[in-house]
Amino acid sequence: MGIKPYLITKSLTPENQETPINFIKGDIVNYKLFYRRNHFSYPNFLTSFYFLPIEGLVRFPKVFSLQEIRVLPSKTVKVILECAGNKRELFNPKVFGEQWGKGAISQGKWKGTPLSALLQYTGLLETAKEIVFEGYDFGERTDTNQQYHFSRSLPLEIALHPDTIIAYEYNDQPIPFKHGYPLRLIVPGWYAMASVKWIKKITVIDHEFTGPFQAIDYVYYPNRDSDIGKIPVTTINLNSTIQKPLNLQVLNTGNHTIEGIAWTGRGKVLKVEISLDGGRTWEAAKIFLSTENYSWVRWIYEWQVTEKGEYMIISKAIDSEGRMQPNEPIWNRKGYGYNAIDKIEVKVE
Amino acid sequence: MGIKPYLITKSLTPENQETPINFIKGDIVNYKLFYRRNHFSYPNFLTSFYFLPIEGLVRFPKVFSLQEIRVLPSKTVKVILECAGNKRELFNPKVFGEQWGKGAISQGKWKGTPLSALLQYTGLLETAKEIVFEGYDFGERTDTNQQYHFSRSLPLEIALHPDTIIAYEYNDQPIPFKHGYPLRLIVPGWYAMASVKWIKKITVIDHEFTGPFQAIDYVYYPNRDSDIGKIPVTTINLNSTIQKPLNLQVLNTGNHTIEGIAWTGRGKVLKVEISLDGGRTWEAAKIFLSTENYSWVRWIYEWQVTEKGEYMIISKAIDSEGRMQPNEPIWNRKGYGYNAIDKIEVKVE
Repeated sequence: MGIKPYLITKSLTPENQETPINFIKGDIVNYKLFYRRNHFSYPNFLTSFYFLPIEGLVRFPKVFSLQEIRVLPSKTVKVILECAGNKRELFNPKVFGEQWGKGAISQGKWKGTPLSALLQYTGLLETAKEIVFEGYDFGERTDTNQQYHFSRSLPLEIALHPDTIIAYEYNDQPIPFKHGYPLRLIVPGWYAMASVKWIKKITVIDHEFTGPFQAIDYVYYPNRDSDIGKIPVTTINLNSTIQKPLNLQVLNTGNHTIEGIAWTGRGKVLKVEISLDGGRTWEAAKIFLSTENYSWVRWIYEWQVTEKGEYMIISKAIDSEGRMQPNEPIWNRKGYGYNAIDKIEVKVE
Repeated sequence: MGIKPYLITKSLTPENQETPINFIKGDIVNYKLFYRRNHFSYPNFLTSFYFLPIEGLVRFPKVFSLQEIRVLPSKTVKVILECAGNKRELFNPKVFGEQWGKGAISQGKWKGTPLSALLQYTGLLETAKEIVFEGYDFGERTDTNQQYHFSRSLPLEIALHPDTIIAYEYNDQPIPFKHGYPLRLIVPGWYAMASVKWIKKITVIDHEFTGPFQAIDYVYYPNRDSDIGKIPVTTINLNSTIQKPLNLQVLNTGNHTIEGIAWTGRGKVLKVEISLDGGRTWEAAKIFLSTENYSWVRWIYEWQVTEKGEYMIISKAIDSEGRMQPNEPIWNRKGYGYNAIDKIEVKVE
């Protein structure tokens, strides 16, 4: 009697479904449960006749075949991809847009060629400032009623980082089409809007890219009614999620293992603390530190509960530079980067 | 590029997954998207050697084979099954337990033999008062730490109603195991805890049945800290759900079709009204009335929106006896029977 979790359907046009994060065990998410986040309908292009052009401010514009890319030295990175809108439904006041719960996050092994290796073939002109990645996916935006491809840029130092790869495999298999086949940019440590799927073209430019997915979306707007103080969304915030028990679950008295994950796009998670008294006192969870740079860490906390009643369980991650998750989320108009301490409630009877 | 909705995973031990109700079209839910609600792990019994005993206060106790039941005159009813906890997550204050959203409801065609036809073979003694249905599923309850089978009773007048059937098919196929194969009681108009799956035994008794799924669970407790005023959960409350647009969706100005369903376990839904001004004024939705007795009705409302802004959309069902959905849910400690008017918010830009 197979019992399995499914993707949690948020919308179908475009397809947005989240990972059932409470039921993910281990470090590698099977592609079937990898959250799907699309801006448009799936692109329609000839994957059997696929080439990747690199053009713009390069010395030698070049069109790479898949074969040329695959024979270059490869790199495999275990990477979290997290939608910048993960946990959006927890903001209060509510934020319009896709109501992601805690599952717009997944992790697995991406294999590909460092972008820097491809750029060694093309060279860069001295005026190069950003690199633009255009995906095959396109469609109309509701705000401007114009058609756009999904395009994002990276500053040079991120684009040239040895772990920024043009990936062709996920978990030792060709990338599933819904996740970017045949080539997907992987930018470890950044929210996943940066990891452009179905790469159509790479263009080197000498100015700041202002496509709508860079200059309108994926921007923190701290004010409801004005754009004052806006900041682009880049790296993944320090965060944690309690996977077990479930929110509002009913438990027996006795021993329970509280389990979860913690992650960050900058530095490393060093500690996770648990509070069972509303945040007054904290105790360290047992954390399974990793030697990998871009993956979540798992943590557990053995909870002995003898008294019946209602309990709040709070988790808080602390990173290698002493930063910790804030008590309250930093509200922003488009609902990005939620990373307040994670809270659930349970009843013990 | 197949895009399909999935069951929404709530818990896996036992398996509780809800129907992605926003994405259900039409009147018949495919069994793959039929919500799964279990009290225990799936039962393990020899379905190839299955017999149904009817015993207790009958003149002639009898054990029916499946074959005997299948050759009797059959009845097919299009029936809503709705978990009494549907929409529990909307209660405020929050209620502990499975956090069902709006999808612990499904509908399809159940075919079987009226229970009354089986009881014609056994007869009933004059002292008969209730009929108890025991399922093969069993396990330990967290409150008493004792093992129970899932058992429920019906008063005679409900048990003998010609539409109360011992079903063996769902949508023209044998009932899927997860939904009660080989035999499931179907009690049209009652919340689905009454429609016992995997029927093991039917027993006629002369008193009020007090099993825990009758006397502890599936009881409305209006007070948080006492059992005063408790009432058993029986028939499905008048209700409606907006399927489209999605809550907190961003829309363009222009024409939008608001769509949904409305249903009740008593009488018929006659009208659905929509408010776009917070409940001050209401307009009739177009409703597709049905000649069937136990199925939901679909409704649509054509909305022309020219002004940008944030809107609340409210739906309210009204039944054949003038009852209407309440503005606020009737809070109860275990979170049953939520049936307040349905509300979503959208942003038009």
